[in-house]
Amino acid sequence: MCKCIIVICSMLLYRPLIVIGGSCAQDHEGIGGFQEWPQVESSKPYCKYAVRPPSAILIPLHVEKAVRNSIYGRPGVAYLDLPATILNQSVDEENIYKVAQCPPPPLIFPDYRLIKQAATLLMQAKKPLFKKKFILITKFFWNFEGVAYGRAENEVRSLVYSTKIPFLPMPMAKGVVPDTDERCISSARTYVLQQSDVILLLGARLNWMLHFGKPPRFQPDVKIIQIDLCPEELHNSVSSAIAIQSDISTAIESLVTILKEHKWSITENNPWWKDLLAKSNKNKTIIQKMSMDTSVPLNYYAMSFHLANCIICSEGANTMDIGKMILLNNKPRHRLDAGTFGTMGVGLGFGIAAALYCKNYAPTKRVLCIEGDSAFGFSGMEIETMFRYKLPIIIIIINNNGIYSGFDKETFRQIQASGESTRVTPPNCLTSETHYEKMLEMFGRKGHFCTTVKDIQQALKICLQTTDSPSLLNIMINPQADRKQQKFTWLTESKL
Amino acid sequence: MCKCIIVICSMLLYRPLIVIGGSCAQDHEGIGGFQEWPQVESSKPYCKYAVRPPSAILIPLHVEKAVRNSIYGRPGVAYLDLPATILNQSVDEENIYKVAQCPPPPLIFPDYRLIKQAATLLMQAKKPLFKKKFILITKFFWNFEGVAYGRAENEVRSLVYSTKIPFLPMPMAKGVVPDTDERCISSARTYVLQQSDVILLLGARLNWMLHFGKPPRFQPDVKIIQIDLCPEELHNSVSSAIAIQSDISTAIESLVTILKEHKWSITENNPWWKDLLAKSNKNKTIIQKMSMDTSVPLNYYAMSFHLANCIICSEGANTMDIGKMILLNNKPRHRLDAGTFGTMGVGLGFGIAAALYCKNYAPTKRVLCIEGDSAFGFSGMEIETMFRYKLPIIIIIINNNGIYSGFDKETFRQIQASGESTRVTPPNCLTSETHYEKMLEMFGRKGHFCTTVKDIQQALKICLQTTDSPSLLNIMINPQADRKQQKFTWLTESKL
Amino acid sequence: MCKCIIVICSMLLYRPLIVIGGSCAQDHEGIGGFQEWPQVESSKPYCKYAVRPPSAILIPLHVEKAVRNSIYGRPGVAYLDLPATILNQSVDEENIYKVAQCPPPPLIFPDYRLIKQAATLLMQAKKPLFKKKFILITKFFWNFEGVAYGRAENEVRSLVYSTKIPFLPMPMAKGVVPDTDERCISSARTYVLQQSDVILLLGARLNWMLHFGKPPRFQPDVKIIQIDLCPEELHNSVSSAIAIQSDISTAIESLVTILKEHKWSITENNPWWKDLLAKSNKNKTIIQKMSMDTSVPLNYYAMSFHLANCIICSEGANTMDIGKMILLNNKPRHRLDAGTFGTMGVGLGFGIAAALYCKNYAPTKRVLCIEGDSAFGFSGMEIETMFRYKLPIIIIIINNNGIYSGFDKETFRQIQASGESTRVTPPNCLTSETHYEKMLEMFGRKGHFCTTVKDIQQALKICLQTTDSPSLLNIMINPQADRKQQKFTWLTESKL
Amino acid sequence: MCKCIIVICSMLLYRPLIVIGGSCAQDHEGIGGFQEWPQVESSKPYCKYAVRPPSAILIPLHVEKAVRNSIYGRPGVAYLDLPATILNQSVDEENIYKVAQCPPPPLIFPDYRLIKQAATLLMQAKKPLFKKKFILITKFFWNFEGVAYGRAENEVRSLVYSTKIPFLPMPMAKGVVPDTDERCISSARTYVLQQSDVILLLGARLNWMLHFGKPPRFQPDVKIIQIDLCPEELHNSVSSAIAIQSDISTAIESLVTILKEHKWSITENNPWWKDLLAKSNKNKTIIQKMSMDTSVPLNYYAMSFHLANCIICSEGANTMDIGKMILLNNKPRHRLDAGTFGTMGVGLGFGIAAALYCKNYAPTKRVLCIEGDSAFGFSGMEIETMFRYKLPIIIIIINNNGIYSGFDKETFRQIQASGESTRVTPPNCLTSETHYEKMLEMFGRKGHFCTTVKDIQQALKICLQTTDSPSLLNIMINPQADRKQQKFTWLTESKL
Repeated sequence: MCKCIIVICSMLLYRPLIVIGGSCAQDHEGIGGFQEWPQVESSKPYCKYAVRPPSAILIPLHVEKAVRNSIYGRPGVAYLDLPATILNQSVDEENIYKVAQCPPPPLIFPDYRLIKQAATLLMQAKKPLFKKKFILITKFFWNFEGVAYGRAENEVRSLVYSTKIPFLPMPMAKGVVPDTDERCISSARTYVLQQSDVILLLGARLNWMLHFGKPPRFQPDVKIIQIDLCPEELHNSVSSAIAIQSDISTAIESLVTILKEHKWSITENNPWWKDLLAKSNKNKTIIQKMSMDTSVPLNYYAMSFHLANCIICSEGANTMDIGKMILLNNKPRHRLDAGTFGTMGVGLGFGIAAALYCKNYAPTKRVLCIEGDSAFGFSGMEIETMFRYKLPIIIIIINNNGIYSGFDKETFRQIQASGESTRVTPPNCLTSETHYEKMLEMFGRKGHFCTTVKDIQQALKICLQTTDSPSLLNIMINPQADRKQQKFTWLTESKL
Repeated sequence: MCKCIIVICSMLLYRPLIVIGGSCAQDHEGIGGFQEWPQVESSKPYCKYAVRPPSAILIPLHVEKAVRNSIYGRPGVAYLDLPATILNQSVDEENIYKVAQCPPPPLIFPDYRLIKQAATLLMQAKKPLFKKKFILITKFFWNFEGVAYGRAENEVRSLVYSTKIPFLPMPMAKGVVPDTDERCISSARTYVLQQSDVILLLGARLNWMLHFGKPPRFQPDVKIIQIDLCPEELHNSVSSAIAIQSDISTAIESLVTILKEHKWSITENNPWWKDLLAKSNKNKTIIQKMSMDTSVPLNYYAMSFHLANCIICSEGANTMDIGKMILLNNKPRHRLDAGTFGTMGVGLGFGIAAALYCKNYAPTKRVLCIEGDSAFGFSGMEIETMFRYKLPIIIIIINNNGIYSGFDKETFRQIQASGESTRVTPPNCLTSETHYEKMLEMFGRKGHFCTTVKDIQQALKICLQTTDSPSLLNIMINPQADRKQQKFTWLTESKL
Repeated sequence: MCKCIIVICSMLLYRPLIVIGGSCAQDHEGIGGFQEWPQVESSKPYCKYAVRPPSAILIPLHVEKAVRNSIYGRPGVAYLDLPATILNQSVDEENIYKVAQCPPPPLIFPDYRLIKQAATLLMQAKKPLFKKKFILITKFFWNFEGVAYGRAENEVRSLVYSTKIPFLPMPMAKGVVPDTDERCISSARTYVLQQSDVILLLGARLNWMLHFGKPPRFQPDVKIIQIDLCPEELHNSVSSAIAIQSDISTAIESLVTILKEHKWSITENNPWWKDLLAKSNKNKTIIQKMSMDTSVPLNYYAMSFHLANCIICSEGANTMDIGKMILLNNKPRHRLDAGTFGTMGVGLGFGIAAALYCKNYAPTKRVLCIEGDSAFGFSGMEIETMFRYKLPIIIIIINNNGIYSGFDKETFRQIQASGESTRVTPPNCLTSETHYEKMLEMFGRKGHFCTTVKDIQQALKICLQTTDSPSLLNIMINPQADRKQQKFTWLTESKL
Repeated sequence: MCKCIIVICSMLLYRPLIVIGGSCAQDHEGIGGFQEWPQVESSKPYCKYAVRPPSAILIPLHVEKAVRNSIYGRPGVAYLDLPATILNQSVDEENIYKVAQCPPPPLIFPDYRLIKQAATLLMQAKKPLFKKKFILITKFFWNFEGVAYGRAENEVRSLVYSTKIPFLPMPMAKGVVPDTDERCISSARTYVLQQSDVILLLGARLNWMLHFGKPPRFQPDVKIIQIDLCPEELHNSVSSAIAIQSDISTAIESLVTILKEHKWSITENNPWWKDLLAKSNKNKTIIQKMSMDTSVPLNYYAMSFHLANCIICSEGANTMDIGKMILLNNKPRHRLDAGTFGTMGVGLGFGIAAALYCKNYAPTKRVLCIEGDSAFGFSGMEIETMFRYKLPIIIIIINNNGIYSGFDKETFRQIQASGESTRVTPPNCLTSETHYEKMLEMFGRKGHFCTTVKDIQQALKICLQTTDSPSLLNIMINPQADRKQQKFTWLTESKL
């Protein structure tokens, strides 16, 4: 709809997100200008601020406001529409609106009385009646400025390390406390959500990703301690026992101080912790067993490799879901995935942004795009961009010939031969055994077709040595592979 | 557009503002149902939350969310659309969505480092270099919950009383500190805005009502200390020297504590204060002189009467503007006027809401509607409602035969006689000497036609004794009357 | 929301309907300008064209487009937003966009094959199997241009006169063929809708006003011949047997030609016509009896007076519904009422527009506003406008102390005395016996309080002699008065 | 934003275009349901009808209305939103809303008086004063139903063949009259637009694609005879001399009848036609010369091959623009390109839709996608879909290493080696000499890398024999290649 779109964005630095669109000349409006469209109006539902500056001299006013709205309060996107008329306008410099750059966003502090109540509630949880408890650490997305300034992860780590409370990170929060920490209880996610009496909810929302906070996935009388920057999110879906509007860092710092004063922590012998650890270890063992299963065709646990110091971009259905369990993050803000909306096709774009960041600011980091084959199909052509800018991104396609499941090669061949393929092929099925790795040959390179664990290991070794271009592993897995069996189906209907 | 509209609102109690509309049966949609319209979509730009509950059993979920969104964070309106289909739906009680009422909105606390900086900046202002300074107290609208719980006015009064800083209330903030306080500097508004070096801005916006905070109405290098609940408002239009996101009460309490520790206050001999007091007294004298001018026809200063313990509703152009100077408030939340948007026609509706509140919760209070004659013309028929519910509202019409100015009776008669009236009568001119007081005779009562100060005094006496119905004073003033001369014209173009 | 609104409109001449709003200066946008609001965006759902001209030189382009969109195709409203910046802009005349005024809207012609089919269907209806049939003439609103050029009423009258088909006008179509024509079957509306086999639908929609065209209000197999300018309206709600996109005048002209060639008409002895006439006469007799009932308190049939050569504006619930049966129109475009949306409060505004039109173009016509008391309460203050411009509008209030029904005076007195009035008074009840006629005393005139038919007759006589100001009759009727009993309740649920 | 999107569409058959989206369960709304979003509201600006059926039993009502709105009047898209709640609802069959399928859209007829005027104007054009004239045949998109019923092309061909008027097709109208017809004057487009006195405009808009109908691209006093289905389009941008609202077929049929009666046609000796033919032949010679230039690297005229009986899908900047001159269509509705909005990335999707149509209804036709390399980069991954469904689409990439222009291989290598590639590479430049043909190796096939005309010819021969899978030609052309020099630049600013 626009002649050009410039996205000023740096997710990794948590900078303002401004989209600038160019629209047709204003004297072409009403008579069928090129791509004439009410762009500001159309972008409003998706933006915190959307505006067309009325003239070139007022651009600074609206850029400042767009940036400020993007990062102050609950962060979001801003859109500026610049018609050709303004892009071609000449103005005297002295007439240009003068405006100062806005300072970093304000920091708000919690109601200390509520923090004390939260501390009391957590500490009471040591008593027999509150045997089961845990802490849920979750996505810092909305609170990103606090974290970006290097403090929220410190506070949260301090909380976990000093109290030994178990934690569960939401996908984008992985690494705020290292995934490898013993207290990270991701492998018993279903169990711990269902059993806990008290949950400390940091910036996360009790939406579909957390089963709306309701039975049968949660205790009916679970007590939520909710800390969120955005007041309208408090009590959403379920009433929080204690709801605190605050930056996460300031609230947790206060909370830690109180808990430390009381020298409170969960001991190794705490029966709830022991129970939890047992459950977690049992699941880890199952997963480990599945990942040790190197029989061909492989399963999803073929993703069980560990690359140090990398940023992981992830998308796909099972690939993303299972991947968030297997691929560990030990640093904050090193994981980008499809997010709450579950939009597919974003992976390679995220990868390119991350790689450009690394190129300029963190040359020793590598970027890894773990892609379901269907998700890769949305934006696979971006490989060209990666070659153009020499970005050494490692793309790993977990290829099961479809979404959730596809056909094995022989079955697919028979369907195609039947002449009824358009009718018989289910919409979630893709062409069997597509050699995506061949795409690198468009640029004179070779990709890797992997069917065994050994293939993967060898290919990864080569990829890590490739620093002037993207590389690609096309890992064939069993089209019928699935994750370990789950207790609940997707979007289990809560008793609302 | 709706069959019925129920507005759940109590501005005086600062309760949630929910509009409930009834729309046509859902099986009439698409085929021309009665008043079929996309109501939710159309109300969205004006609402914080607008939704049609999908079924009767889910109504509680959306009522709770509407209420919560209305009062949490920056307050606003919510809209619930109930089609006939849902209004007529029968459901088993046990299936109805269960939801707890949300608690009062959260209270946020300021960054204490910024409060200290603010205190320092204020105290430095005592030094010779910062001779000129004052405090601007302003509208608490957006922060109303904090005030409603009885604390913000205490903190602000404590600040003014302990430091002797002069203050300037925005219209809806009149009475937070009594208008009669010596430090209330409203009568030197233009001067004080233009001269101050440091301004403490509490919840107010530097919008058109405050001349965008820019020269020539403000010092180019004025230092703003801004305290606001809403982070996106910080730095808007001009950069604040210190911008604090906080509830007003919590921020001011901290600030007062520091200032008291330093025993800081502005003395009677402070040259800036003496200068200001002189200017203010001079203006007060002029106003007093104008209000002493009882020659007929009267001028706007005919409004110079003082009724104790009343809620003042005010609208009109000059009537509202001049009235806010003459009609004093000594209690918070006792003034309702057209607000930032300047919407006319709201006065009698506000009056009815206030009178219903008084009837139930404050029977000794009286409600006063001070109306320009044009503003009264928007909703004068509401007198019927007042009679129906026996609401003893005192309506005072300041009648100048038009908006800003009208014609005297003889001129108007000549225009009408000329046969060219539709062409000659300017759009802001109304029929001369309309006897609005006759409207009470529709209900068997008499209104008061007042041309002299004595008329007014006698009429008011009768009105105060009338407790079972509205009363009305139609005060004729000079059609050419104006306020005392102003230094700047309305919406003086700032050098942007 | 706007500083000023100019409505360019002449409903009676069917001219374009353009609303022009003034918005704040463009350099005040984003920083809190006076009444800053996205006006174009907000008005779009209600408009065919809504735009802010980008600069003063381009205003003509957008005025022409607004006018053209307003009258070409399905007519509608257009909105032009002129910010202060543009209102104050100076431009060289030679730079102003040159544009020609658009000619009258195009006329489209029907598919002649369909017209022949329609003629055949109508003529077959004479045969025994199609004993019952009638023609429904209805609102020309959407097709108004065709009518405005003086031809559609001629064609439709020609159709009725030459074929003797009975007809039923929708409210705004009354007078296209005179209401006094014998073939006007309004008094048997329910019966004729329910019994007809073939319906010729001219520009009307089968929406709630026509019970969606469905049983039990219509025959399940009724055959609709639909003629409409707007193709998307064809077949809406029910499938038309023959659906013709055409201007009404061109289609009916063709139809009449064919029917005349076949010399087809409905004879006096046609059993369906005799049946219908009997039913109609029976109902007319009942109505006549009710209108002869001059006992006090009066009923709605007190409206049974006939004023020649007047434009009737009508609103209210029962007042409008019953009035459209009693108050006859013999000329097209001489009736303005609340329309499909049923919006109340429009009557006096319509009256003023009509009176200004008469003043300039038809000085012998009079304007009559027939108002329910509740409807009058929305905009009664407009009497001031009528006096200002000396418009001799006759306002007639049919006063039943409420909407649908109110209380008699004594009951109301008791409720008020009970001290529970706010709780006990139903929301549709107004103050009993309000003397609305006293409002004229605001301007030194007298209104008329009427309780008997004789009162009404005397008052009307005086009103007709009053030519320099509005007059007002406040006719008290029985608060429990109702129309003659109806077979179906309002919005009878169709079996969809 | 949706769990699933089903597009019911058959552009080639000109059937209704309905998008059906699935949204989250209604009891998840308000609490963060999966992909919760106001989909109906968001899709409205792009749709003629957008609705969420309120319950499963009402789905037929809204499907019928969506289909009817999509094809009646000016065609457009409709959107139906089906939340999970409705998708999972069970209803008794007898309760389901019964609705008949709407018949084909109505046909409207022109005002015959205007057709006569148009004929007169055309015939006058034979006289000396109107030496220069031509007919502009243009896109039938909006009028597609008339054409789909097999009649509009007949009428238009009849007009051209009987009158010998020269014509100019808009891109999507190519083939309505064969491009190979001598009267097709595309190769003198600029000249003929600029010189003509009378233009017959059929369904086309005078928007940016036609330079707004204004000088310097048109005569200031050019007379437009405009025929359009949509009345609001009449006179848009410039006033038409004669504006006729009508289906094209009915209007042209009338026009041809009159012109035939007058035996009017343009003779071979008509000086304007001779002038035009000379200009056209001159340009054709230049183009022919460029297309004969088989030197390597090739230029855009490498597209000069002719494949019989194929549907051409085309996108790209120069590729599409130049291609519409070189690639000829002799049948109507056999060309799909980016359209008025110029949206890139649509080519392969169009190709798949066309190929599925051919597979079922026209197995002897072939589908050709002519793609710029940048355009191909938007949706190149769709090759997988083509293989999955065995669609024998021939993809031809005209590869100039960028948009409008790229770098040659050596220059690009140097830039990349410079380490400054992200800074130096212009945004319209792509990786040099990308071997897109290698993508076929993902599926075990070979593509064709072509640098010479001979390469192309050999490759095409193989492609035409390949009927069970897509094939691909990657034709390298000179990165600096351009079309023949144009008199005006793109979007030449008209003197408005």
